[in-house]
Amino acid sequence: MPYEGLIAELSNIVGHDNCLSDPADLIIYGYDNSTMAAVADVVVLPNSTTQIIDIVTIANKYKIPIITKGGSTNTCGATVPTLGGIIIATQKLNKIIRIAPNDRYAIVQPGITNSNLQTALKPFNMFWPPDPGSAKTCTIGGNLACNAAGPSSVKYGVTREHVLGLEFITGDGQLIKAGSCTTKSVVGYDLTRLLIGSEGTLGIITEAILKIHPIPEATYSIKANYKCINIATEVITRLMSQDTIPSALELMDAQSLNLMKKNPNLHIPSTSQALLLINISSSAEHIDSDANKIYQILYNNGNCLDICMATNSYDSDKIWQARKLLSPKLKYIAPNKINEDVVVPVSKLPCLIRFIEKLSVKYNLPIVNFGHAGNGNIHVNILINNKDLKQKQDSKICLQQIFTKVLELNGSISGEHGIGLVKSNYIKHEIGIKTINLNKHIKSVFDPNNLLNPQLFANF
Amino acid sequence: MPYEGLIAELSNIVGHDNCLSDPADLIIYGYDNSTMAAVADVVVLPNSTTQIIDIVTIANKYKIPIITKGGSTNTCGATVPTLGGIIIATQKLNKIIRIAPNDRYAIVQPGITNSNLQTALKPFNMFWPPDPGSAKTCTIGGNLACNAAGPSSVKYGVTREHVLGLEFITGDGQLIKAGSCTTKSVVGYDLTRLLIGSEGTLGIITEAILKIHPIPEATYSIKANYKCINIATEVITRLMSQDTIPSALELMDAQSLNLMKKNPNLHIPSTSQALLLINISSSAEHIDSDANKIYQILYNNGNCLDICMATNSYDSDKIWQARKLLSPKLKYIAPNKINEDVVVPVSKLPCLIRFIEKLSVKYNLPIVNFGHAGNGNIHVNILINNKDLKQKQDSKICLQQIFTKVLELNGSISGEHGIGLVKSNYIKHEIGIKTINLNKHIKSVFDPNNLLNPQLFANF
Repeated sequence: MPYEGLIAELSNIVGHDNCLSDPADLIIYGYDNSTMAAVADVVVLPNSTTQIIDIVTIANKYKIPIITKGGSTNTCGATVPTLGGIIIATQKLNKIIRIAPNDRYAIVQPGITNSNLQTALKPFNMFWPPDPGSAKTCTIGGNLACNAAGPSSVKYGVTREHVLGLEFITGDGQLIKAGSCTTKSVVGYDLTRLLIGSEGTLGIITEAILKIHPIPEATYSIKANYKCINIATEVITRLMSQDTIPSALELMDAQSLNLMKKNPNLHIPSTSQALLLINISSSAEHIDSDANKIYQILYNNGNCLDICMATNSYDSDKIWQARKLLSPKLKYIAPNKINEDVVVPVSKLPCLIRFIEKLSVKYNLPIVNFGHAGNGNIHVNILINNKDLKQKQDSKICLQQIFTKVLELNGSISGEHGIGLVKSNYIKHEIGIKTINLNKHIKSVFDPNNLLNPQLFANF
Repeated sequence: MPYEGLIAELSNIVGHDNCLSDPADLIIYGYDNSTMAAVADVVVLPNSTTQIIDIVTIANKYKIPIITKGGSTNTCGATVPTLGGIIIATQKLNKIIRIAPNDRYAIVQPGITNSNLQTALKPFNMFWPPDPGSAKTCTIGGNLACNAAGPSSVKYGVTREHVLGLEFITGDGQLIKAGSCTTKSVVGYDLTRLLIGSEGTLGIITEAILKIHPIPEATYSIKANYKCINIATEVITRLMSQDTIPSALELMDAQSLNLMKKNPNLHIPSTSQALLLINISSSAEHIDSDANKIYQILYNNGNCLDICMATNSYDSDKIWQARKLLSPKLKYIAPNKINEDVVVPVSKLPCLIRFIEKLSVKYNLPIVNFGHAGNGNIHVNILINNKDLKQKQDSKICLQQIFTKVLELNGSISGEHGIGLVKSNYIKHEIGIKTINLNKHIKSVFDPNNLLNPQLFANF
């Protein structure tokens, strides 16, 4: 045991029952949604900010890594403890401290799930816009650490646009408060946004002041099928350059649709090569005219194979069924599929998708593309069989070529999933060694002993 | 001359005509809108990023400060060279590199004025939301460095919400690119937002990728007078907690109105103690119903002294006249007035304004409050006579008490003007010494020789 005395000291802080070192427990807290896994030395479940400060002090004494963990839904291994260490599980820090609907903010602890926050906001007719697919289990702390998004960010923006301030603990145990309860403030550097998306490497978030919004009175849904991807992406560009922005604008490409066409309940035309799925959210007064405006753009002077609108939640659910069924289907076909989330300017989508289609043919690899088309953010799924070494090797070559193309098109290698361990080899292609070094120096300011998620920087 | 050879070396870089050391020129570039002034050692007008890198190299050789200057409209002395140094004037870096309306971004150099950018965007039916009062002369570089806002930020948010990426040069001459041309990206730390609002202390911005938006089809204006501030602020809270957010929501308090009541063209009722000025921007289809919804909230079941709506720009201008005339009037009455821009959660506005009214009586100081009420952002103007030493002293005591109250109400001491030199003594009350030290360490990562606007940190 390299850290003799560590567990006893941590137990003293959080209590014996909240300090786990049984191998079975360590396994449970050692993986995420990336297929990666490792075991930490110990897992602690603090219930206060003071306890976290004490844990950080102990970590500094033993020079042992700290990995803060919310709902373990990250897809890039950002909380997989490959260097061991102390896992701080935030699940007991799940309180709502204040909801101020008149001032449009809520103060929460990091361990509350996205979904529980939304439930608590509902009686005030308010919501917090970020809506990752994992909302039921992912935590607000995780959403902040990874700058989470989801379908609605096409209209509302991503996590960083919905936070007013943060309280966090640095790697050397300092409690820092950034931001305020107001929608404007320019006092000192913007530490709030610096922490957001930093994947747990700069501080442990202990409280967040979130910007909340009134729930739209009405939401309609539309689906529209097209005979080729170019027409669909032309429509996306047109939708995104006018003023009535949908609250979701998702694309499924030909390969995605091929997997779904056999299901007669989904009513996908056999000639469809691209499907757009749209939500429109508005006031009760404006919903019909807003939906009609978007319907006309989708209809595209008849250049649309079919189009169908839902004005109630039952019919909406049916419209979204194809998209909802896709991810589980892909996971079933290829449990070890590679799931990327590249992003390009919207007008470059046809170029990107054609490029990926060619790669798919060249390397004989099934590649399925779908996702948040309104942001140009595409989930590229390479359906590899993990036991086929040739496929594994080819998929790596493909991935590298996709990333190169994305950067050529002025895009980014990750729109919402982040870098974690999975993409740490690729980050240099986007931001370069100079900027990585700048990042490392910033980290050393917040975390002089390099204890906060150090495995994420181990490659540099 | 402490920096022998400096001017010759700088002339070699930018050319003789773009390197100014005549005392008259140094004065022109030494002040801003804060009433502070100082002279630098030399002013350079580079016309390329390469020239700036070379200038930074020279500055490091001579260990001389660099102050980057746009339109000199800052109200807090953020670019007043009290420690001397090289002023980099960005006026020749005023090009638009690309406008991509379909992808909703524009890439610009820092020296273009806000107003010239808007003019260039107009043919594409696009605009960039930040609209400070100084739009005609302030530069985009200055807007970014200070995280500028303006009336429309109540609907659209502040500068940091309208930037996708930046190119900048650090204090040791490294060229760094942050962000991308996409609305989503989570790759490395958010250096874009860290630079925004850092008042020129972390890097010299050389290019910015700005998020642009379609111009709303129609704008109506409304003014409404109230017999007491409490009713007006109740209405503000109600306006801000519903979904149809105005594109401007300004307040003028009783003291502001008293200065204006003598002007019969403004039609301010003698009993009015608070005036709200509102813009509503929407599609041609929705403008009437949106304006009507907001009109009803302002009408407040008749609890409104009078109310008047304008549906064309000629009438709108008349509605906004009282607000437009106020600032020049204040400057005329008290040229050395103190102009603060505190911000509190919207529901705390009555509490703040009552507190300031009491201070005004207690110290016999005229204090006029107006500003961006929808954000809780109030411009507190203390109308002192600079020659009256008692008034000057009292105003300092008042200011300290106002800042303390604002922080008690979970607000911030600056909503949009920033800290600069003027407020550097007060920043510790809001963010504390620990956070100031963290800021200093972050600065040393970007600027190891402390050359970028070092006077702003001289107090710490």
